[in-house]
Formats: sequence, structure tokens, C-alpha cells
Amino acid sequence: AAGVASSTVSAAPAVHTGLPAIKWRMTSSFPKSVDTLFGSAEMLANRVREITGGKFDIRIHAPGEIVPALMALDAVQQNTVEMCHTCSYYYVGKDKAFGFGTAIPFGLNARQMDAWIIAGNGQQLLDEFYANYNLYSFLGGNTGVQMGGWYRKQISTVDDIKGLKIRIAGLGGEILSRMGAVPQQLGGGDIYTSLEKGTIDAAEWVAPYDDEKLGLYKVAPYYYSPGWWEPGPVVHFFVNRQEWDKLPKEYQAAFRAASREAHILMTSTYDHKNPQALARLLGQGVKLQGFSNEIMKKAYDVSRELYAEEAAKNPAWAKIYADFDKYRKSQNAWFGVAEAGFDRFMQSVR
Amino acid sequence: AAGVASSTVSAAPAVHTGLPAIKWRMTSSFPKSVDTLFGSAEMLANRVREITGGKFDIRIHAPGEIVPALMALDAVQQNTVEMCHTCSYYYVGKDKAFGFGTAIPFGLNARQMDAWIIAGNGQQLLDEFYANYNLYSFLGGNTGVQMGGWYRKQISTVDDIKGLKIRIAGLGGEILSRMGAVPQQLGGGDIYTSLEKGTIDAAEWVAPYDDEKLGLYKVAPYYYSPGWWEPGPVVHFFVNRQEWDKLPKEYQAAFRAASREAHILMTSTYDHKNPQALARLLGQGVKLQGFSNEIMKKAYDVSRELYAEEAAKNPAWAKIYADFDKYRKSQNAWFGVAEAGFDRFMQSVR
Repeated sequence: AAGVASSTVSAAPAVHTGLPAIKWRMTSSFPKSVDTLFGSAEMLANRVREITGGKFDIRIHAPGEIVPALMALDAVQQNTVEMCHTCSYYYVGKDKAFGFGTAIPFGLNARQMDAWIIAGNGQQLLDEFYANYNLYSFLGGNTGVQMGGWYRKQISTVDDIKGLKIRIAGLGGEILSRMGAVPQQLGGGDIYTSLEKGTIDAAEWVAPYDDEKLGLYKVAPYYYSPGWWEPGPVVHFFVNRQEWDKLPKEYQAAFRAASREAHILMTSTYDHKNPQALARLLGQGVKLQGFSNEIMKKAYDVSRELYAEEAAKNPAWAKIYADFDKYRKSQNAWFGVAEAGFDRFMQSVR
Repeated sequence: AAGVASSTVSAAPAVHTGLPAIKWRMTSSFPKSVDTLFGSAEMLANRVREITGGKFDIRIHAPGEIVPALMALDAVQQNTVEMCHTCSYYYVGKDKAFGFGTAIPFGLNARQMDAWIIAGNGQQLLDEFYANYNLYSFLGGNTGVQMGGWYRKQISTVDDIKGLKIRIAGLGGEILSRMGAVPQQLGGGDIYTSLEKGTIDAAEWVAPYDDEKLGLYKVAPYYYSPGWWEPGPVVHFFVNRQEWDKLPKEYQAAFRAASREAHILMTSTYDHKNPQALARLLGQGVKLQGFSNEIMKKAYDVSRELYAEEAAKNPAWAKIYADFDKYRKSQNAWFGVAEAGFDRFMQSVR
């Protein structure tokens, strides 16, 4: 296709002449087997290579090849690798404000996160915070609302939460802990056996497409919705600031565009695959349940307490939360009108 | 930023050397005043220029500068211009199957359209159809669910639709016509006066951000939701097939990535601006109303009749609809679980 002859093509000097060959390493927090997540990183790398004729070459490394899964952010901060694909909320142990970039319980859904980051104050507020860790952030995917996980028994009331041993991390785990549950940290590979043995009573993972692969329905048939702790979780490309600043502006532009394409690919792929997986799971006898309003409301109230406490002692949290929370209210006032009105009807006639 | 010195930068030969300078013209169906729509075309053009160091240069032309607003597709088909920014459903007069690419009544919402086109069979089915018009299609924005328009009086029952003179075009107009309404075709500039004089009883436009500018609330205070005829309307970049095939593959890749970035920018911008506009409108005394389930159900049933009739006589419609309708059912079965469960709760506590 390069042999072009057309009145719109002139023999102007080639502007790209002399742009450098650049090799970057991207460490991922996700194994290749989680193909929707890993695939978005592949799309970014492939597209950037295509655009630059192979000159800007980003190689992806699975967790453990160079850097352990949950050290990805640290490796970029220290410039061990130029960039990573991870979720900011994996790092709430450093600062709870890392939650905002991905998801906080009862936060924004996927479209609302996009609006806040792309058109609202989100990108600026987050990058101001990430600057403390020597990072620039780029949207790198969104799973959509996740599910509430797999339970060996029904839980209907706030009382049923008490003593519940549930595999869940992060702020969702903190809220459930305040409600009397006993959050557990377990790798994906250990969930099945722990549920089977009754070492744990429940476990959250992602949503039907990823959950199906773990086979948890065989040992914990009650499948609860929604995962109120992960309403629209964003996955990130984090880039070391010095390495970014060294890029030619053409490569920065290529990266920006390609990362946005990778971002939307992930949501669309999940939205495409989850319905089919849900249908298969229901065919296996999975018992689909919604969390009761009593449980949702109690968890929501606890989240508000937690956030107020954090705001009182953490200026980074306070600054971002003020904007985020105002945005949430405004967004839900609008999404409750046209989007919800339409969706509700379509779900009723399907 | 081009003066790079780093261990990851080598002196490999410049692959972009010799790529041609290319100038394209994009005719838009949207005036600059509709800034969210026009802005997405600008983003595409700007990003492609940035990526290619100015060598791939797309100039945007407002409606009428080269081509009238609703002749954009024809102009690309005939290669008067290389590309356009328009909505495929403006061309349902040629073939009703042009509806699918943008929106059909009671079709897919914005995220579902993305999933169908990006991860499902949508892109392939649509491009097979557009090939008859010598076009390639690229996602170029989505407004989200639109509103149901402005009404001088309340309409509560199917009987209230009878004789209603409403400004609405396309398949939505056909459905309302079958329900006894009298659809009218009016340019945006004539709506206000016609409503004021009572020449028409109602008019649909877009959603709060764009609607506010027309000031229709002053003459038709009942603002209905949702616009069931436009659940997730996609805006398109259509490209002439021969011109596309002539592009160097690096420019094709740049265009693909930049168009996806433009696509998501539009939705995020609308999602950002609509809530603020809705709040202002409510402050002006606008009476927000939801269409009754009776009206929604009747319109839905009529849409099913219309689609069955069209499938019986139009093979292009029949082929796309079979896939689209199956997709819709599967999507709503899933979106009714986690997304709706979460959103419903958040809308209740705001």
C-alpha cells in the first residue's frame, strides 16, 4: 500500500526521518491466561509498532519474568522498566488514594470513570497524585461492574455478613471487615480448594467470563451481584516520567491514541464475553442472587464513614475525593434518567 | 523532546523516511456550534497530524463548505472528498439497513454498540453492507441514550400519541406514525418557533447539553425520557475505499487508533456535560417525565412488526438484524444483572 500515486500526495520531505528506534519493556500484573486483560496490553504494543513502522517497540513481560505482579508500579517508579500494565488500587497499602484511579466502593461506573478522567478533572487530579511516584497514567482498560462473588450459603441480612470468611482485598475488604466479616487474602489458584474445604465461605474474583474458568460454582453455587466495591475498575498503563519526557512527540501521540484504543477494547471484550459465560453458568445450575438493599445500604453507610475518616487524615485523599464525590452525585442524577430508563425497559422485554 | 540519549535508543535507520505527505478533506454533517460532535472530528485530525509529524493532514469542512450536511456519505462514495463525519442512519432513505450502524429504535445502548462492533460481528456485517456504497466505516463517537424530546402537554397513554405533531425523523418517526402521530421534518433552527406557535406539539433533538441551547423548555416544558429511538447512537467516520487502500499502513494504523480516541471522547464529553445541563434545565422549571410503560411497550411492539416486515423484503436488513437482535437479548440478560443492580442502587442513594 506504500506505492501511492494520487493528486493528494506530494513529494514533501519525510518528517519522520531521523526519529529514533526505541525499545521499552512493559511489565504486566496479569498472566497471559487472563486474556482480556493481557490482550489490551498486546493491542497497545502492536498498534504503536504498526504506527511507527516498528521503531517504537514495546515488549510485554508477564508477572515474574522481570518483576513480580504486584511490584509493577514500583518497578516503573524506579525505572527498572519504562512502563507497566496494572491497577492503581493494588497499591492502596502505600496510600488509599491509589483507589481512585481504578475504583472505590460505591464509586463511578465505567462510563462515569471515563467521563471523570477524560472530560472532568480526573486525569489532572490523578496525575498530580501519581507524580509523587514519578508516574504518568493512561487509561488501559475497564472490566465494567464486577460480580459480588461466590458464596457457599445465601446471605440475606447484615447479620449474615458477621463471621463470613470471604476472599476479598482492598477497600471492599475493609468495609466488609467493619461489618463483621473476616476478609482473606488468597491467590486465584487457592480459591477453589479453600471454598471446597470450607476454609473460606465466599470469594470474589471478576465477572462471569473470568469466574467461569475457576469453576467456583461447583463448590459455592450462590453467585451474588453487584460487586459494589468495583463498579467500573480502570486498568492502567503507568509510564516512568523521565522516559515519557524523552519520547519524540510523535511517539507520545501514537501512545496516547493506541492506549485509548486498548482501553475501549477491554470493556468491549468483557461486555461481549460475559453474557455468554453467564448463560453457560446458569445452565450449570448457578443460583444468581442480588445483594439485599439492607446489605447494600449498610455497606454504603460504612463506606461513607471510612471515606470521611480518611479525608480527615490524608490530604491527597481529601482533595481527590471532594471532586470525585461531587461528580458521582451529578452523574447518577443524569444516568438515572435516560440511560436507566431505557435499560430498565429493555431488560424487561428481553 | 526529540534530543534523546538513552540506553534504550539506538541509531537504527529511520523507517518512516519516504512516507508521503497526504492531504485529505473530511466533510462533516455537523456545524461547529454542536461542539461535542464537531470536536471529535477535530481530535481525530489533530492526533493523526501529531503522530505523523504533520504529513497526514486531514482538513475538516463544515456542512455546506463543500458538501451539504446530508450528502456527506454520497460525497465520500463518489470520492468528492476522501472522508466524512456523519451518522449512517441519516441515509435510511437509501436502505433501512443504514439504521444499524448508528441506532435503531429499541436497539443497543452505547456500551452494547461498542461490544457488538468491536468484539462481536458488527464491524464485519456493517462493512459488508457499506461496501455496496464504496465505504469503510470507523467508530467516530456516541452520544449515549438521547432524550425523548420536548412536549407542550403531558402524554400518558397510547391515545395521547394520536394526532401528535412531533418533529422526528427516521425509524422512530415511522413507529410513531404507525401509532397515529404525525411526524414532521424540521431543521434545528425552526423548532422553537413551530412549538411556540403550536404548529407542532413536540420535538426531539438530542439530550440536555444540546437541547438547552435551543431553549425549547420555554415553549414546551415537558421533557420526556428516554429517546427509545436512539439508545446508543454511533457517529461515523466513513472513508472512501480506494483512498483508504492507498494509505501507507502506518497511516492506516494511526487513523485507526486516533478514531477510537475520538470515539470515546464524544461519549465522555456528553456524559460530562449532560448532568450539568440537566441540573440547569430543572432549575428553569422543566418538568422531567418518563414515558409510561404503556407507550414504551406499544412502540416496542410496533418496532418488532416493522422489523419483521423489513426482514421479509430486504435481505441486507434481514442478515444484520438476525445477528443484532440475538446480541441485544444476550446483552440485556447480562446488563440487567451487575450493571443495572449497581446503577439502580447508586441512583437511589444519591
